[in-house]
Amino acid sequence: MADPLPDLSILRRCWPTYADPATTHPVRVNGTLFGGAKPVVIAGPCAVESYEQTRNIARVVKAAGCGLMRGGVYKPRTNPHSFQGLQDEGLEILARVKRETGLAIVTEVMDPRLVEHVAQYADMIQIGSRSMQNFPLLTEVGRTSVPILLKRGWSATLEEWLCAAEYVAMEGNRDIVLCERGVRTACHWSYARNVLDLNVIEPLRRATPLPVIVDPSHATGQWTLVATMSRAALAAGAQGLLVEIVEAGADRSRLRSDAQQGVPPATLEQIMAMARENRVPDPGVPAIDS
Amino acid sequence: MADPLPDLSILRRCWPTYADPATTHPVRVNGTLFGGAKPVVIAGPCAVESYEQTRNIARVVKAAGCGLMRGGVYKPRTNPHSFQGLQDEGLEILARVKRETGLAIVTEVMDPRLVEHVAQYADMIQIGSRSMQNFPLLTEVGRTSVPILLKRGWSATLEEWLCAAEYVAMEGNRDIVLCERGVRTACHWSYARNVLDLNVIEPLRRATPLPVIVDPSHATGQWTLVATMSRAALAAGAQGLLVEIVEAGADRSRLRSDAQQGVPPATLEQIMAMARENRVPDPGVPAIDS
Amino acid sequence: MADPLPDLSILRRCWPTYADPATTHPVRVNGTLFGGAKPVVIAGPCAVESYEQTRNIARVVKAAGCGLMRGGVYKPRTNPHSFQGLQDEGLEILARVKRETGLAIVTEVMDPRLVEHVAQYADMIQIGSRSMQNFPLLTEVGRTSVPILLKRGWSATLEEWLCAAEYVAMEGNRDIVLCERGVRTACHWSYARNVLDLNVIEPLRRATPLPVIVDPSHATGQWTLVATMSRAALAAGAQGLLVEIVEAGADRSRLRSDAQQGVPPATLEQIMAMARENRVPDPGVPAIDS
Amino acid sequence: MADPLPDLSILRRCWPTYADPATTHPVRVNGTLFGGAKPVVIAGPCAVESYEQTRNIARVVKAAGCGLMRGGVYKPRTNPHSFQGLQDEGLEILARVKRETGLAIVTEVMDPRLVEHVAQYADMIQIGSRSMQNFPLLTEVGRTSVPILLKRGWSATLEEWLCAAEYVAMEGNRDIVLCERGVRTACHWSYARNVLDLNVIEPLRRATPLPVIVDPSHATGQWTLVATMSRAALAAGAQGLLVEIVEAGADRSRLRSDAQQGVPPATLEQIMAMARENRVPDPGVPAIDS
Repeated sequence: MADPLPDLSILRRCWPTYADPATTHPVRVNGTLFGGAKPVVIAGPCAVESYEQTRNIARVVKAAGCGLMRGGVYKPRTNPHSFQGLQDEGLEILARVKRETGLAIVTEVMDPRLVEHVAQYADMIQIGSRSMQNFPLLTEVGRTSVPILLKRGWSATLEEWLCAAEYVAMEGNRDIVLCERGVRTACHWSYARNVLDLNVIEPLRRATPLPVIVDPSHATGQWTLVATMSRAALAAGAQGLLVEIVEAGADRSRLRSDAQQGVPPATLEQIMAMARENRVPDPGVPAIDS
Repeated sequence: MADPLPDLSILRRCWPTYADPATTHPVRVNGTLFGGAKPVVIAGPCAVESYEQTRNIARVVKAAGCGLMRGGVYKPRTNPHSFQGLQDEGLEILARVKRETGLAIVTEVMDPRLVEHVAQYADMIQIGSRSMQNFPLLTEVGRTSVPILLKRGWSATLEEWLCAAEYVAMEGNRDIVLCERGVRTACHWSYARNVLDLNVIEPLRRATPLPVIVDPSHATGQWTLVATMSRAALAAGAQGLLVEIVEAGADRSRLRSDAQQGVPPATLEQIMAMARENRVPDPGVPAIDS
Repeated sequence: MADPLPDLSILRRCWPTYADPATTHPVRVNGTLFGGAKPVVIAGPCAVESYEQTRNIARVVKAAGCGLMRGGVYKPRTNPHSFQGLQDEGLEILARVKRETGLAIVTEVMDPRLVEHVAQYADMIQIGSRSMQNFPLLTEVGRTSVPILLKRGWSATLEEWLCAAEYVAMEGNRDIVLCERGVRTACHWSYARNVLDLNVIEPLRRATPLPVIVDPSHATGQWTLVATMSRAALAAGAQGLLVEIVEAGADRSRLRSDAQQGVPPATLEQIMAMARENRVPDPGVPAIDS
Repeated sequence: MADPLPDLSILRRCWPTYADPATTHPVRVNGTLFGGAKPVVIAGPCAVESYEQTRNIARVVKAAGCGLMRGGVYKPRTNPHSFQGLQDEGLEILARVKRETGLAIVTEVMDPRLVEHVAQYADMIQIGSRSMQNFPLLTEVGRTSVPILLKRGWSATLEEWLCAAEYVAMEGNRDIVLCERGVRTACHWSYARNVLDLNVIEPLRRATPLPVIVDPSHATGQWTLVATMSRAALAAGAQGLLVEIVEAGADRSRLRSDAQQGVPPATLEQIMAMARENRVPDPGVPAIDS
């Protein structure tokens, strides 16, 4: 076991308030609490594609009892010729849907120059996997007072991930939620986009009081695996889930990004039921070995 | 998504009896049934080190309500200068403990020349990760009528794993239980020995009626993560668990292999309670996308 | 073989001028030509630490016959508490050393807000591995007329890498040099920081006319492997090398980043000799299979 | 850098004869010497498919000036329904071709029960990647006096590989040649079957006096990359090459295994020319850091 963690202000051993592993630093996003007894579910479309689509999905999210909606407007796409998101127009759609539904908004930003702008719309700012080590961006979001959702990089170690969180925290913003979303391996390609690393949840929760959630949608890339992996994530101690959804009866062939990933409304309801029935377990504190 | 599976006799699409994904090919090991409504737990020491140690652990296994005990006597050790297992003497210890407790015995064989011999002692033969593509060994165990526990290779794809099972099945023995035990990745070294791949359980169960279990001990290498990952594995649809245990009050520094891996008796009881409370979920059959 | 490449303007099949695989799009940086008959060597310190250190190393670089010097002033460091580079002060040091030696300057930028500023100092702008998919940054450097050195991400596929180059090219800047620097695997940790992927050079050169170079310093993390892997990279068809160096007699324990990585001056001379003796081979065009 | 090597008899530090890193333990196979000044090339078909094919290829091998021919007769195939090799009939074909050409024979064995039998035909016994940790097999070949070609496992560390060699050496047979053949990673699938790890050659040669060769055929899976990667391997310090070939004008669609991998005769001649022109470099012994 290599690379002992350096001293970081977000580690329990450096943050006396949370020395007890059963405690979590609470991160509040509007009325929703990350780090409480109940897991939090964030749901929404991969990309905001139109007002109608977003409003329809928002109604599903609201009806299912979620308080937070995700929706991408600046989309980090591998291929520059793919749809890049509605950008400013997308932010306006999110703002309108927020006014109409009261849902809090989670959206990604990739460009440090847009942080201030996006912060006026977002209740929670997402830093995507590709940006986990975009240090100027981390610094910039650390200067806002908006809670941050920090996804793990594709092949990042636990140490690298916590160091990335420290870039945010150093600027004064410790309202950080960590999100596991699968790692790249040599052996998973035929059945899933990544391997969801649930082993990491418990060591992470022991090391830091920041809440830890799981994104089963990107971890699998297959909507038919999302409910099962949501259940597994909660069992592994995840304090929340980030789930992509599609409209009821959506024609997947017409979706503009990650078409196989979003679950239909009925699956979201299943997942919400799981979340309601679950109490987040404390991370194991195996004091006595016998 | 690459490498479509070839036609294998163990796939549902080639085995009409089990076309329905809610069905499992039952594998019976003495009184215990893999593939029924309840998950099965196999527990025991990493290595059989002495009669006393094995008997003491067997009593714990028995008391916890497990019907099957694992114990290594031919140990595949990376370093040839490490303890290689008690071999024949170990088999005699297992036989004695079986007589005394009634527990069924699960033990590994690596050498095709020993299959017939080990088959006289074992109620279930384990093929370890390093042997997943040891084709002469697979063929040899396929010729016995002893149920086979086939672990996934360190970086094996789903296709390679199912092809390995087919080597066994082709000789007439379809009583095969598949066991996920973690894969090697670039990013997990500091907190776990491997990344447990729970994404694979559901695709595997949809593809084949063979029962699928999970080994959280080798997948983590850390006994303090085993209870949590057992819970996650059952939530992901595992039909059983393979758990290493140590004696109550064991001095880990004196154990001769994988000293940090075995859970103490109290943790085994927790895991057994989980198994009793769980009903194995059917693999998802998402017929309608809405 | 999965993921066929989308149509990208930097592919030979979309860029008729370079349909012939024996041709390369020439990238000129001051007097130095990437894509000619001779491999190009860029050398310099990991980080600019002081004027004296930089000037001393620059003299070594100059004396060895390199025309380009690398030197990091904005350092992307995993740990935010590590030395972050001299930043503006570092740029001034590079400018001074450039005036004194005539060496062209290659330096990294991570922040799109700094691109214009850095472009006034740099003769070639480096995009580091962590930034390979920092799309706003790629777009911004695409708007300059400064040649770009685009390193491969830690676990990026060939497709993702070429798509990243396309982000730059789409803005009008096709003076892009691709740099392989090792990938993360499950099995290399004890002897090298990464696995240098020389298999990728030839397929890359067949697919695109952009020059391809190799960074053996980051690919190994061990200065004692750098000369050997430089020789191997040239043999594999690399059109240049990016090599970190230290001063003669440097006390590695006092270096502020990647202390084991830089080669001493004598090794740089060896590498320059290799480069002079080598003619870059054409990428294989195996027209007839017999 | 983790996992320091245990004390193994094949390490220089435990084998005083070869304390000097410039020395190699010579392994002689008939008239051919591994570990001398010149790299050794082993060439031949993936599988022995008939007498005519094998004889035709043997003539090519002989004409090119190779002394050793490889040819698989017991083929480890992922899919049990694929062609498994001609087995005994294949050994007879090899024996006949050996009588006719004088070429020494290198062939793989997977089953410890066949070692004695194969040893009567083979001048060098190959242990394939899947068998690198087949310890009973390693022990069995260690009891013969036939030189062993030990390939690296798909995701094996340097430590695991050397420990595997030690299983052979412990039985008295130290005539072992190590063969790098590519590792599995998360990022290479579209252009090559594996990533050839040339970083490992030098650390391996520093650690052990056993000769180290490279198999560019399996490392790439693409015959059109084999000549280039052969050149790179020799530059990295490989003491030999293992190359698959096909007959002149072969119809690849009719080959029964790894049809895209074998180079045509003209490419073998190119590779032989490289080998003749090369002197194996000593592994770097960087005594003075300046």
